[in-house]
Amino acid sequence: MTEKEITIYDIAKILAISPATVSRALNDHPAINSQTKLSILNKAQELGYRSNTFASNLRRKKTNTLGVIVPRLNSNFMSAVLAGMEEVANNAGYNLLISQSLELEKKEKANARTMFASRVDGLLASIAYDTDSFEHFEMFLGKNVPVLFFDRVMEHPRCTSVIIDNVNAGYQATSHLISEGCRRIMHVTGDLRRNVYAGRLEGYRQALREKGLDPDESLIMVTDLSLEAGRLAADKLASMDARPDGIFIANDLCAVTCMKALKEKGYDIPADIAVVGFNNDPVSQVIEPNLTTVFYPGYQMGKVAVKTMINQLNGAQNIEINDPIILRSELMIRGSSLKKG
Amino acid sequence: MTEKEITIYDIAKILAISPATVSRALNDHPAINSQTKLSILNKAQELGYRSNTFASNLRRKKTNTLGVIVPRLNSNFMSAVLAGMEEVANNAGYNLLISQSLELEKKEKANARTMFASRVDGLLASIAYDTDSFEHFEMFLGKNVPVLFFDRVMEHPRCTSVIIDNVNAGYQATSHLISEGCRRIMHVTGDLRRNVYAGRLEGYRQALREKGLDPDESLIMVTDLSLEAGRLAADKLASMDARPDGIFIANDLCAVTCMKALKEKGYDIPADIAVVGFNNDPVSQVIEPNLTTVFYPGYQMGKVAVKTMINQLNGAQNIEINDPIILRSELMIRGSSLKKG
Repeated sequence: MTEKEITIYDIAKILAISPATVSRALNDHPAINSQTKLSILNKAQELGYRSNTFASNLRRKKTNTLGVIVPRLNSNFMSAVLAGMEEVANNAGYNLLISQSLELEKKEKANARTMFASRVDGLLASIAYDTDSFEHFEMFLGKNVPVLFFDRVMEHPRCTSVIIDNVNAGYQATSHLISEGCRRIMHVTGDLRRNVYAGRLEGYRQALREKGLDPDESLIMVTDLSLEAGRLAADKLASMDARPDGIFIANDLCAVTCMKALKEKGYDIPADIAVVGFNNDPVSQVIEPNLTTVFYPGYQMGKVAVKTMINQLNGAQNIEINDPIILRSELMIRGSSLKKG
Repeated sequence: MTEKEITIYDIAKILAISPATVSRALNDHPAINSQTKLSILNKAQELGYRSNTFASNLRRKKTNTLGVIVPRLNSNFMSAVLAGMEEVANNAGYNLLISQSLELEKKEKANARTMFASRVDGLLASIAYDTDSFEHFEMFLGKNVPVLFFDRVMEHPRCTSVIIDNVNAGYQATSHLISEGCRRIMHVTGDLRRNVYAGRLEGYRQALREKGLDPDESLIMVTDLSLEAGRLAADKLASMDARPDGIFIANDLCAVTCMKALKEKGYDIPADIAVVGFNNDPVSQVIEPNLTTVFYPGYQMGKVAVKTMINQLNGAQNIEINDPIILRSELMIRGSSLKKG
């Protein structure tokens, strides 16, 4: 099955020129005139020549590949991040090796080992719900392969991260509900080991305290933010004696499912209950009333993360001394929370 | 910066055992007892040893990497496909190198060249709106690197594809609208060079003809299926003298935007106009009334595509003699098209 690999020597022989000229032409060397370059490139293509990126990478100890580990590929937010990452990487001549942990530390570790063995030049990761250890990232640092976290991050003196200010975003969302007259605000969030959820909860608590409202722990519901969690949140809300008048949910799909369930139970949104979500997913502008949410700049996060990584690899930047890069999120106020109209 | 790479000789020396024993232990050879294996694995990890996948791949001429080229990463359908692909690939020990063409043949060709140079073991592609040539795939076949298309495919005797029956899906969608009483049915679709759109249009025409309704070419609108296209479709519909009573749109996000625009213009859906979309995106169950749409098994398509590719690579299957694999789609009937209640 396998054919003999075409080399620059074959091309040189056929064109009756020196291998050095072929090599230079294929590397777009200025000393070779464009007419010659063209004829060499055409012949190379005709013969099925492959520039030996693979072998030359081995010599240079560079693969021009960046590893990306995300919790789930199948999410609107993450696909925006990946689209931004791919655009910057592709323009800079880098490939992306992409894998998902499916929210499991065990699989995240296996993915990290695969990427380590594939010798990615850098690793970009957003960590799973249940990740506790750093050791699967430590091995990269041991080889001076930079590690950058985005969205869901780990703190490490040698890693930087690209994030939003989750505390502030949670604070803004909750303050808005208070300013609309809400006094008993429920909060539905994800695993609190993850900065994104811990931060939003902290912001929620800050906003309540600032307005003299005592955070009531029974109003905080830690879930997996699935569609099912949205339905369960509606059930819990409906079963409470002292009913909440507002709810802040750390994920739009979950919030929209909760809204649908509340509407089915006969609740008027926002009159009976004001709702705020998170991410600014497309569904937030389709549900009626439209969902107030926090715009999360996923596409930009992807671009900034890869740019930062490539700058580090080019020596233009040292991420080991970098503070986290904080992107701006923004509360998008829509009908679901406007009790005052 | 670069440290010396740890080898099995270093591990052997430290543990005062033979390099062969270390090698066997790291390859989980049955001749080595598990206690010895464990101590060798621990020491290897402690020293930061990397199994030399990269160099051994070079010897085997295998990279255990599959290339994936998609039109856009940032789509609900495509993220489902990629999630399915990653799951199967990861379980089989393959990595995914992923890139997007941004719907441009030019970028698709550049991506293909990069993947070719990276020596992917196989290529999976869904092609851009404007791709006309096959030559950027031909080079893979020249090296016996299998190429498999999914969703948006090209016909080639040496390539197989994983698709749905788009003609039948378009036929079902249109027949359903006719059975609900629609007689002037508009169709909004994408670039007709692509099988998915040409097929759905063909099914639309078949259904009309079968019911004795003459396909009116002025009711067919070829767009880029963007959100803007959805708004334009609503404008066009509203401006027509002989107003359509049904509309079939080949993409849910576009259909939902069209529905929003129609509702703003005062149309009652489905009484004034029945709407059918395509894909079964999450938004289809959020818009009111819920959108009738075609369930497209993206996640399953991703799984089947990678399974088929890996079977080919393992010699368990020969995709060059395979007919296309056709997955089952399904019309999901919801409120947006139920004129008869």
